[in-house]
Amino acid sequence: MTRGFPEAEYQVRLRNAQQGMAEVGISALLLTGEADLRYFSGFLTRFWESPCRPWYLIVPAAGTPVAVIPQIGRHLMHQTWLRDIRTWDAPADPDDGLDLLVQALRDVCGSGGRVAFPDRQGSTFRMPLGVYRRLLDDMQDTSFVSDGGLVAGLRQIKSAAEIDKIETACAIASRAFSRVHEIAKAGCTLEEVFRKTQQLCLQEGADWVPYLAGACGPGGYGDVISPASAQELSPGDVLMLDIGLVWDGYFCDFDRNFAIGPADPATQAAHRCLIDAVDAAVEILRPGCTLGDVHAAMAQVLTTGHKPLASGRLGHGLGMQLTEGLSILPGSDVEVAENMVLTLEPVAMTGPDRIMVHEENIVVKAQGCRFLSKRSGTDIKVLEGSV
Amino acid sequence: MTRGFPEAEYQVRLRNAQQGMAEVGISALLLTGEADLRYFSGFLTRFWESPCRPWYLIVPAAGTPVAVIPQIGRHLMHQTWLRDIRTWDAPADPDDGLDLLVQALRDVCGSGGRVAFPDRQGSTFRMPLGVYRRLLDDMQDTSFVSDGGLVAGLRQIKSAAEIDKIETACAIASRAFSRVHEIAKAGCTLEEVFRKTQQLCLQEGADWVPYLAGACGPGGYGDVISPASAQELSPGDVLMLDIGLVWDGYFCDFDRNFAIGPADPATQAAHRCLIDAVDAAVEILRPGCTLGDVHAAMAQVLTTGHKPLASGRLGHGLGMQLTEGLSILPGSDVEVAENMVLTLEPVAMTGPDRIMVHEENIVVKAQGCRFLSKRSGTDIKVLEGSV
Repeated sequence: MTRGFPEAEYQVRLRNAQQGMAEVGISALLLTGEADLRYFSGFLTRFWESPCRPWYLIVPAAGTPVAVIPQIGRHLMHQTWLRDIRTWDAPADPDDGLDLLVQALRDVCGSGGRVAFPDRQGSTFRMPLGVYRRLLDDMQDTSFVSDGGLVAGLRQIKSAAEIDKIETACAIASRAFSRVHEIAKAGCTLEEVFRKTQQLCLQEGADWVPYLAGACGPGGYGDVISPASAQELSPGDVLMLDIGLVWDGYFCDFDRNFAIGPADPATQAAHRCLIDAVDAAVEILRPGCTLGDVHAAMAQVLTTGHKPLASGRLGHGLGMQLTEGLSILPGSDVEVAENMVLTLEPVAMTGPDRIMVHEENIVVKAQGCRFLSKRSGTDIKVLEGSV
Repeated sequence: MTRGFPEAEYQVRLRNAQQGMAEVGISALLLTGEADLRYFSGFLTRFWESPCRPWYLIVPAAGTPVAVIPQIGRHLMHQTWLRDIRTWDAPADPDDGLDLLVQALRDVCGSGGRVAFPDRQGSTFRMPLGVYRRLLDDMQDTSFVSDGGLVAGLRQIKSAAEIDKIETACAIASRAFSRVHEIAKAGCTLEEVFRKTQQLCLQEGADWVPYLAGACGPGGYGDVISPASAQELSPGDVLMLDIGLVWDGYFCDFDRNFAIGPADPATQAAHRCLIDAVDAAVEILRPGCTLGDVHAAMAQVLTTGHKPLASGRLGHGLGMQLTEGLSILPGSDVEVAENMVLTLEPVAMTGPDRIMVHEENIVVKAQGCRFLSKRSGTDIKVLEGSV
């Protein structure tokens, strides 16, 4: 697998954005979040873990993007396709680069421009609020408006090269999951299992592992976002591990359930029901159906026998972020389109305050969908033995 | 090491915040960022990796904090000391919990309140911009103001329990660094070295590894924030690895340099100079000196012999975030105080566009400072052999 993208890929992204901007009269996009900024520049670093500096990318209505960034990023940004790179001495500068940003916006838009931020649900706005307020004060002749979902809309349709990267990440996680029996059995603590699962991901080729969640309990678990604890795996438990690892800046996000010792019939049935729900989604998933249709197909399986449906969505978009853009929600009229990448994430209620969750990653193609994660079998995997 | 904090620790944090709020007439703090929210609640999860939902914590002028959060976090938040936990069905709700947030602010502040955000340099503001704008529209009788650095000021002085956690993280990284010779030698690619360094961190007890940067080159490197590449380590190179790993929600952040094969005299001298700069900082570091004094002490060593001083700061605050709060900058009049945790991070210019960086983690005590990282020796470590 090749890292990065050819410049042509960024040219297409830029052209599509500029076409959308022209349609609604936007002079420039002002991007502050990691994924939005990387989408148009290719700037990939883990340095976003440091919250102390803002980063700005201006996508103009015509011409190429302008990066207005801390000095510490100059060397790396110069390795991208961008040429107009302006830097300030952060964090020494008390105004967080505001003067430089205002000047760059003036250069791009003149006065009386309409500068758009991604501002909708799920969007990232990453600058100190005080800087934002001063920006509005300093540019009173400029309108700061919503991008109307433009950037999110572009990002939700993946290119072939993007799909390859997500598929690579998925393959790494699939190999890691196939080795969980090496590191987890009755008597291990969740902490150990979490540490070793991350090691498996790295051994199998992950660049890094930004997300690992999981849980363990008899017949299911209470939530899916807790960090690891010293809890020991016990016979009769269900262990769930949910991996969000990165390869070349793209995520996978799927989980697997494991029975600690032989699974009881209720757990086996719940697992089968989750797999059936995925199958039902796959059956109808193609361009033109809605995310609401996909939800309904899964919900019908999950509630058979009058079981309650858990609240929340049953899947979401996936790509440069662990979760991005799309939500598989009841009644959603968002139309599925070719080259959307989605997680299918059915939830079964297995008791009061107890659930089991299964998750797969797919890409929508013209004739239906293709699995990016290695599709799970119907039967829950059993982890034998004990420490 | 015990995980978590006793409730008394949160009570102290709350009391200190409320005292500061009373002094400047703030009715409530509205917190949206991971670290600020965790500081007052203890809510620890990796789920922040998902950008699709905002989370809110209201710290009132009197009484205990109110969490206004997505339903998916209810189970975990109920395990913290908080009792007033209000949830909405995110992301199904198109208003991102705004109605619930407005109601909670009304309950806490009534009308005509002053609600403060952390908004200064380095602060995190994490809600969709569109929701923020609607919040201002919906609560026109309320003033939304700056917290004046209140939360950052509290967070920069660490408790004994916080220091223990940072020291645990540092000890894990120190053990990982002591094993780098097992995984890196001439002929290895940077990609392999990065993957295996993260595995060492996990083997030695890291919960997760949010940050690993590094670089490699003859006599130094061009930047310190690049991701790994397929570049091979060659004899004569300097390899730098910078680890930001987490234990129980607290970071270490320090690096080590390694010579690939015997180090040339210039590299040896540069390394010694970096260690001398740390020693010079340690010599003067105690409560009452300024961060500008610390910068000057290091700069004097780094520029001896008329060598140029690299731009940027020479260290920063550390704790729940990889970099937080404080910056060791020229002329800074910020006073050093007991129980600040800092990185000391001198940079030596080793050529045009070429640097070497060394970093240690320390805590300021009444009589001086104590190392949290295992202090480096004067001589650069040499990695012998090749693949």
